[in-house]
Amino acid sequence: MIFLHRSPALHRVLYPLIRFSKRSYTVTMSDKIMACKKAAAVHAVDEHVRDKQVIGIGSGSTIVFAVQRIAERVNSENLHLVCIPTSFQAKQLILENGLVLGSLETHPQVDVAIDGADEVDEDISCIKGGGGCQTQEKIVASCAKEFYIVADSGKYSQALGTVWKKGIPIEVIPMGYKPVQLKIQKDLGGKAELRLAKMKCGPLVTDNGNFVLDWQFTSPGNWKDINSKLVSIPGVVETGLFINMAKIAYFGNPDGKVTIHKAPWAF
Amino acid sequence: MIFLHRSPALHRVLYPLIRFSKRSYTVTMSDKIMACKKAAAVHAVDEHVRDKQVIGIGSGSTIVFAVQRIAERVNSENLHLVCIPTSFQAKQLILENGLVLGSLETHPQVDVAIDGADEVDEDISCIKGGGGCQTQEKIVASCAKEFYIVADSGKYSQALGTVWKKGIPIEVIPMGYKPVQLKIQKDLGGKAELRLAKMKCGPLVTDNGNFVLDWQFTSPGNWKDINSKLVSIPGVVETGLFINMAKIAYFGNPDGKVTIHKAPWAF
Amino acid sequence: MIFLHRSPALHRVLYPLIRFSKRSYTVTMSDKIMACKKAAAVHAVDEHVRDKQVIGIGSGSTIVFAVQRIAERVNSENLHLVCIPTSFQAKQLILENGLVLGSLETHPQVDVAIDGADEVDEDISCIKGGGGCQTQEKIVASCAKEFYIVADSGKYSQALGTVWKKGIPIEVIPMGYKPVQLKIQKDLGGKAELRLAKMKCGPLVTDNGNFVLDWQFTSPGNWKDINSKLVSIPGVVETGLFINMAKIAYFGNPDGKVTIHKAPWAF
Amino acid sequence: MIFLHRSPALHRVLYPLIRFSKRSYTVTMSDKIMACKKAAAVHAVDEHVRDKQVIGIGSGSTIVFAVQRIAERVNSENLHLVCIPTSFQAKQLILENGLVLGSLETHPQVDVAIDGADEVDEDISCIKGGGGCQTQEKIVASCAKEFYIVADSGKYSQALGTVWKKGIPIEVIPMGYKPVQLKIQKDLGGKAELRLAKMKCGPLVTDNGNFVLDWQFTSPGNWKDINSKLVSIPGVVETGLFINMAKIAYFGNPDGKVTIHKAPWAF
Repeated sequence: MIFLHRSPALHRVLYPLIRFSKRSYTVTMSDKIMACKKAAAVHAVDEHVRDKQVIGIGSGSTIVFAVQRIAERVNSENLHLVCIPTSFQAKQLILENGLVLGSLETHPQVDVAIDGADEVDEDISCIKGGGGCQTQEKIVASCAKEFYIVADSGKYSQALGTVWKKGIPIEVIPMGYKPVQLKIQKDLGGKAELRLAKMKCGPLVTDNGNFVLDWQFTSPGNWKDINSKLVSIPGVVETGLFINMAKIAYFGNPDGKVTIHKAPWAF
Repeated sequence: MIFLHRSPALHRVLYPLIRFSKRSYTVTMSDKIMACKKAAAVHAVDEHVRDKQVIGIGSGSTIVFAVQRIAERVNSENLHLVCIPTSFQAKQLILENGLVLGSLETHPQVDVAIDGADEVDEDISCIKGGGGCQTQEKIVASCAKEFYIVADSGKYSQALGTVWKKGIPIEVIPMGYKPVQLKIQKDLGGKAELRLAKMKCGPLVTDNGNFVLDWQFTSPGNWKDINSKLVSIPGVVETGLFINMAKIAYFGNPDGKVTIHKAPWAF
Repeated sequence: MIFLHRSPALHRVLYPLIRFSKRSYTVTMSDKIMACKKAAAVHAVDEHVRDKQVIGIGSGSTIVFAVQRIAERVNSENLHLVCIPTSFQAKQLILENGLVLGSLETHPQVDVAIDGADEVDEDISCIKGGGGCQTQEKIVASCAKEFYIVADSGKYSQALGTVWKKGIPIEVIPMGYKPVQLKIQKDLGGKAELRLAKMKCGPLVTDNGNFVLDWQFTSPGNWKDINSKLVSIPGVVETGLFINMAKIAYFGNPDGKVTIHKAPWAF
Repeated sequence: MIFLHRSPALHRVLYPLIRFSKRSYTVTMSDKIMACKKAAAVHAVDEHVRDKQVIGIGSGSTIVFAVQRIAERVNSENLHLVCIPTSFQAKQLILENGLVLGSLETHPQVDVAIDGADEVDEDISCIKGGGGCQTQEKIVASCAKEFYIVADSGKYSQALGTVWKKGIPIEVIPMGYKPVQLKIQKDLGGKAELRLAKMKCGPLVTDNGNFVLDWQFTSPGNWKDINSKLVSIPGVVETGLFINMAKIAYFGNPDGKVTIHKAPWAF
């Protein structure tokens, strides 16, 4: 299934109908920001992706560049990779770039996972989930021997919550969203709002069929403890807090340079 | 469960914590458009809602005014109604206005259903589903003895597709969205696009866990036949074409007057 | 919505079509076991259910008797109760017994929750989830000021795992079932099997659209710690371990007597 | 992704952890029935599967033998196939037999689909859905240039309903199951029962998150018309009636011989 010789002619025979919309995740970004994202993504891919690996593919706008870079290297270096998606968007990116799609069912061990983030502090603690994919992203990251963050330099922060101001995304079972909301606010303070959709009436529904609460916290603290408290609330599926998971973050700068940030706790 | 005496004091005891966001469906509307919607909604509610009825509650921005009007009348006239929602948003509207929530499980027969539409022609054929709720809306409408459309006058059209230009919304089983898309385009022409979300990466997910294709048709025709062809494609759950379902549409005008349009086929 | 005067005549008008199958959860039970279950359920309902309460309704075969008893008391004592279901089955039981159905959205605080269990030890630590409803059951129980277990005396055990031998049910996100399975087996030992359905091909799907792993543990230990470890695995939605949640268990005996067991830690 | 050279050594490297339960769909079958099923499956696979095809893989107990035969031929004849599953069970069969897994997203056109059935009449009209997978099965079959049925000879019938007596399976949107049930019974007669699960409380949930009604009809008729009426009821997702879809059925007999039945309408 994995180690394949690509024949463009045969490829055309079997893939006659795949025409994905070229940008499945529409984001309005300045050219500068795009350059930042691309620089970070290319750097991380070049540094960590090796032949015969299972690669976890994150979601979001920076990952578009990572997948494109992986595809370039697969073609030029004849790499044999299996890519595990973290969302429907990631699956589409993998397929539209002609990469080999796998799943955690067949590849429960991931060699390298690469993902973006909405905010990253100096411990490489992250807030993720602006794109609503934090649960599958965390599952894939938790299966990876190595997990790397790629982001534009604007995502770097000295204290979580100072850059990403929309709140920590928390995926919840729909029938329990209201008591979870109240429990979070009572036990941990702040305000947890049900995320509403824009392309349909009512709440946003995740790829897992659940809802998202965006929690505006007021008392930052030990994020590992806070995350433990959150996931132990019945009804919480997963949070967008990624603590002690990524050891290195690659931040792309407008000048194309990449700042490499290593977590002090990990080195 | 239904015929109840409301006691504000007891209500406060049992509902201490309900604080819904006041506008669960955010739409930027001019005051004029809002006045149109309100006029239509109030008119239809006053003309058709009677004591001891089961009422189907549609989704969308016009329905907000209908539910508010129903609540006013319930309070002033001491009506005993059961309201059946067509979406999560409708359920929230029912609850935040203090109305009695029912379901098709207990009330499979609906007396009066009131819903908005994205476009309405002179046969009161409608395009619905801009808000992604067409499946549940059509289920509830199909259970109603009487089904009425309320809309601002801008929704009126002489030919479907001239007002609502985003395409006919078609809910599909996720694993089948691609062949359904291709079949629609091949058999019926036009272009069917997967609706993407804005508050998450990737495709919009409906309240039923499915995807939506927005079909830009090029050859209008007999809508009843077109709808039959669409729903008979394996993978199609339901379409946003509501043909021969509503007999009267109420269009609110900017001056507060309401134009009543009756379907020629029905009278 | 809540405090209502029941009029049988009007009830018949509005509920003309409700004919639920009388036993929505088919279990083959001896008369003796049924007598045990009924005795426990009646005892707990009589001891704890009071007027104007919000009652959490568990799932399973013992709860059938609890709901019947609640309905008897509602009718004879004219109680005003709102019942919060923990599953589709519980919702049907509430409706077919003519009780008032509520939800955690409107009633996030539950006064009394009553539920069954597959096994109960002397700390009233429970294994639940044989019926696949542990996530919603735990959400409702976690919202309750008081939570009581009702069971036949055969469910009592001195050490979890000695009575319920099918493993601890763990609800998981489908795309992550395989790595979760491997992680549990590696970190906590034993064997975690994907629960298969019998009325369809392939895995059982829960009311939340997820899968269930049944974990046959080999090293019992501190259940609170074990539960924390399980829920912190990305992909785990909820476990069937209910630790320090119920303070009293009512065990019905074949002779109709009820053994009341109070958790040592709670009194 | 498709045309690959298999290296057992590399396969072991990348698939170290796949250990599916050997029989993901437990059925108690006599050896005789198994021989029937195997004979039919082998015959159809040998007659229709060719190199470089996209193959639709049905669900159920007969398909187990079809997938095993496909795997044997892939290995011995070095075939390059992509297999499209119709259920979670089918996906597991594909993976545990080492075949290449595809999806309708990348391969919306299927060359050959092979599936079982619960009953097959002389027009090769089928009742399917005993395994709850009829929606995905019908989607895949509808994408196939050729669609073949494989079954033991006991599935052959002169009139639908005389062999499979549990009713025609109809997948429905959960919130609409009750009015759909009533409408079917009123408009088409007979009795439509909500299918209950055995491994959880309450109704069976399909791989698409929906419910199933099993419709015991009393007035057989033109099945194409009946199917059209069923799918046009709002709330119906798909039915288990496969009319004019398969042109040939292969029935395995206890003596290992295969009866080939061609639909009169198709030849």
